[in-house]
Amino acid sequence: MMDENQVRTIVAEVLKHIDLHGRIKSGSIPCGVSNRHLHVSQADLEILFGSGYALKQMKPLSQPAQFAAEETVLLVGPKGSIEKCRILGPVRPATQVEVSTTDCYKLGVKPVVRDSGNTAGTPGCVLVGPKGAVTLKEGVIVAARHMHISAVEASKFGLKDMDRISIKSSGTKSVIFNNVLVRVSDKFALDFHLDTDEANAAGINNGDMVEIVA
Amino acid sequence: MMDENQVRTIVAEVLKHIDLHGRIKSGSIPCGVSNRHLHVSQADLEILFGSGYALKQMKPLSQPAQFAAEETVLLVGPKGSIEKCRILGPVRPATQVEVSTTDCYKLGVKPVVRDSGNTAGTPGCVLVGPKGAVTLKEGVIVAARHMHISAVEASKFGLKDMDRISIKSSGTKSVIFNNVLVRVSDKFALDFHLDTDEANAAGINNGDMVEIVA
Repeated sequence: MMDENQVRTIVAEVLKHIDLHGRIKSGSIPCGVSNRHLHVSQADLEILFGSGYALKQMKPLSQPAQFAAEETVLLVGPKGSIEKCRILGPVRPATQVEVSTTDCYKLGVKPVVRDSGNTAGTPGCVLVGPKGAVTLKEGVIVAARHMHISAVEASKFGLKDMDRISIKSSGTKSVIFNNVLVRVSDKFALDFHLDTDEANAAGINNGDMVEIVA
Repeated sequence: MMDENQVRTIVAEVLKHIDLHGRIKSGSIPCGVSNRHLHVSQADLEILFGSGYALKQMKPLSQPAQFAAEETVLLVGPKGSIEKCRILGPVRPATQVEVSTTDCYKLGVKPVVRDSGNTAGTPGCVLVGPKGAVTLKEGVIVAARHMHISAVEASKFGLKDMDRISIKSSGTKSVIFNNVLVRVSDKFALDFHLDTDEANAAGINNGDMVEIVA
């Protein structure tokens, strides 16, 4: 049998993390640091790598069915180029390049912060592969930081799709990121996605844990 | 004569910015975004640029007597190099290289966050100038973000030297930077110094205004 003190200790510990309505008050969220990468359409993939080409999976990503491909391309902008930008699979309807603000300055394109898929009016760049080059008219974005979460976990956290939350990192370079977009889907694994500038500013490494603070 | 409503409006507006003790509650602080740079000793300057060499001022910096020099060097690390890293003057007793975490990964050195001058045990790198090269045993740091403020302004803000504060940027990429070191001196102009990773993470450009929030 547990004595009363043990019960009190356990209840106090649980209440640190769950409110009286059973919702998680502050949970640890793993960070996924996104290095520069691109998603490609099948048509663009074939221009870059040859007719009938299929992406080769190098390793799976934290989100189900997503993977880092073996294939990389050269990004070229008006002021500079970046080698070995990795393609993430599977192929998508439209090609989209996701870079950091630091990368934008290197390429010489304006850093435009967008949610994935919302690329109208964004800068373009040239992609160069072993079999050809694609001139993108638009599609170069600095992906807005966001949190992936399943519907079950979202209800535990009291969150719904398209909510905006604040997320805090710990340590010497502790930062609170405001305006983090919440994306809820049963296809999603719990993950706070941020770019390398954001990770470096906060002293975050891939897989580190952060907290929801508001 | 002002009517009572006008007086109320003005008092309310003033109280937004100054508390009942006359201290500024939330003031706007200009940002100084530090791109990678180095400070050099006279001895190292002469190895890099020749015997008896003196730095040439290109433009003054926001802090009194500090300047960006015309001279740049090549930084070389175990994994890569970075061209045209600018020297800031005047010369100092010890050579110190201040880079972003992004730069550390490019050079292949561990990113070590330090306050300026505290370089014991930090990584080194090779500096190459037109007349010679210097192998630094240590002195490559990611400078900890900090705020410069004069003694008069510090007392208005209710701050003292070595305090730690939180500073918030506005906009889509709003971030709160915790653990910002306060440095008070009558030689200082009001300035929040952060590196390019931090500025890019928060959507801050040089000269943008931020707020003290705690």
